[in-house]
Amino acid sequence: MNGETAREIGEFALIERLRNKLGSVGNSADVIVGNGDDAAVIRAEDGKCWVVTCDAQVSGVHFPSVGDVSGFAAGYKSLAVNVSDVAAMGGRPRFALISLGIPEETPVSFLDDVYGGVRALSEQYDILVLGGNVTRTSGPLFVDVFLVGEVMEEKVLRRSGARAGDRILVTGYLGDAAAGLHLFSGSQVRVREDLYASLTRAQLEPQPRVAEAVVIAESGLATSMMDISDGLAGDIRHLCEASGVGVLLWESELPVSGTLSEVASLAAKKPLEWALHGGEDYELLVTTPAESVRALQKVVRQSRGAPLTPIGEILPASQGISLKRADGIFALKNLAWEHFSA
Amino acid sequence: MNGETAREIGEFALIERLRNKLGSVGNSADVIVGNGDDAAVIRAEDGKCWVVTCDAQVSGVHFPSVGDVSGFAAGYKSLAVNVSDVAAMGGRPRFALISLGIPEETPVSFLDDVYGGVRALSEQYDILVLGGNVTRTSGPLFVDVFLVGEVMEEKVLRRSGARAGDRILVTGYLGDAAAGLHLFSGSQVRVREDLYASLTRAQLEPQPRVAEAVVIAESGLATSMMDISDGLAGDIRHLCEASGVGVLLWESELPVSGTLSEVASLAAKKPLEWALHGGEDYELLVTTPAESVRALQKVVRQSRGAPLTPIGEILPASQGISLKRADGIFALKNLAWEHFSA
Repeated sequence: MNGETAREIGEFALIERLRNKLGSVGNSADVIVGNGDDAAVIRAEDGKCWVVTCDAQVSGVHFPSVGDVSGFAAGYKSLAVNVSDVAAMGGRPRFALISLGIPEETPVSFLDDVYGGVRALSEQYDILVLGGNVTRTSGPLFVDVFLVGEVMEEKVLRRSGARAGDRILVTGYLGDAAAGLHLFSGSQVRVREDLYASLTRAQLEPQPRVAEAVVIAESGLATSMMDISDGLAGDIRHLCEASGVGVLLWESELPVSGTLSEVASLAAKKPLEWALHGGEDYELLVTTPAESVRALQKVVRQSRGAPLTPIGEILPASQGISLKRADGIFALKNLAWEHFSA
Repeated sequence: MNGETAREIGEFALIERLRNKLGSVGNSADVIVGNGDDAAVIRAEDGKCWVVTCDAQVSGVHFPSVGDVSGFAAGYKSLAVNVSDVAAMGGRPRFALISLGIPEETPVSFLDDVYGGVRALSEQYDILVLGGNVTRTSGPLFVDVFLVGEVMEEKVLRRSGARAGDRILVTGYLGDAAAGLHLFSGSQVRVREDLYASLTRAQLEPQPRVAEAVVIAESGLATSMMDISDGLAGDIRHLCEASGVGVLLWESELPVSGTLSEVASLAAKKPLEWALHGGEDYELLVTTPAESVRALQKVVRQSRGAPLTPIGEILPASQGISLKRADGIFALKNLAWEHFSA
């Protein structure tokens, strides 16, 4: 066999190519949101929609290899990343199917723990696991989750609704997951046990922002929403492309936790690099008209949600994607995680 | 790490164990059929239900390795086995998500062909592929399909409805897929090209029985239904367990194609071994009261469906699972395909 390989073409070009292979097959009358957002949305009845998504986590790629990671974390994170995608559309998770690819010599106790992690998150969000599939594989363990959520049609939040003049906000803090991965991956940096626990937990057991997503969607104040899985600098490009806009991010406003700053200093790293390019934070990016920022922050605060921080402004597409620093405005590099890229 | 492994516990014990780990988490008010059937069924509105299922196909396990199989066949079969599961509940397939695990060096042209296979079957059944996910894996290629279908609540056919006195019927012919695998897997048997093509196609591109399933469900005549994926002798156990019944299969009535008999003779194999234990036929097993057999055959015939052949009778559970041969009645061996079994 010869010709171009998956590694050579890269993740996003491959997705685009495969999507085009399918063209317009199938009856799309009930599809509210199709390919290319955090999740697809299908009309059910009476204004109610189903939000559907899937995401596979592979041992040694998305989580450390079996033996270096707990089964609990592998199961928890596999479900969490899908919950985050459903939330990013404004949806509440409802039902899941779980497909496991299992090397023969995997200890059953590890698989018990995978399901323990799935159970913990399912209990938290009242998700019913309807079934699934187990198969043998000669490769690494994979956990593939298919998640169905629910949202009212008029509350669906797409990536495509941002408009020039909007502000862009983010929930929680950025970069903790990347710092956790750094500590976890054999870093020589010695940090206090509570810092280690907090940052590695951000990496291994991310907390999807379901409550925040639902109140944001129900407020009717947001113009677009997505979750951050590949890093702010990479993911914001998807939002800008889908909305046909540009963006200016304000570096000084990016929410960086005290924990992150402390560990970055010990590791001689820049916390902003982790915050911009780290990925796996599973925070929400939201846009809203400038005059609605305070109202949106208020509804999230009243629901006891994570902080919602304005981090920039949406511009016309011609202005591109840039970062305002103390010393000027710079084009924002895209260093996002991409499967298959070297 | 130590303790029992996936291989040691075996597929079905593992599934049961993982299912029990989840207990009663989640709101099951809208669940019509949960774990343990061909697919799960969730109530939507106005009597309409969604049928949801997933099944992963792994290179080198479910289809020959990349290089020995066409991408078309890999894609086609990955979707077909899920279509068959939705059909087995009486449902029509509607939407799919596709999750690909891709080794870096996979030729993009192979992945194009995977989607070509998905497209061919999607066009045939008007299935809309809503999206999916691609991920890198250090192991073999996997294609994991999540499929959502539609069925009216009162038409749902479970595995659990068979009653003593019912007849059991099967669509199409049994054993062709197993014979195809035999030919495909380096058999020394030389057969005519048309026989080779027909049997290997049964293995690589099985034809799910959607039209038959839908008319059977709509007739209201069937008491239970499932598809045959692991072989008649193995799968009938699941139907009997779910229904709390036994069964007597009539060996002389098992539908074996002329093609299969011819190839079996050349290969010095017994066609009935393939028909009983071969697996991957993706035919439907259906039960119906004895007095409804002809009416059920008639509705399937009128829809130009595959032949529907009575192959045995449902008995009380105490009678077990047995096979009536010319020389007597014998307990039916279970030689079904099981992941992880030696």
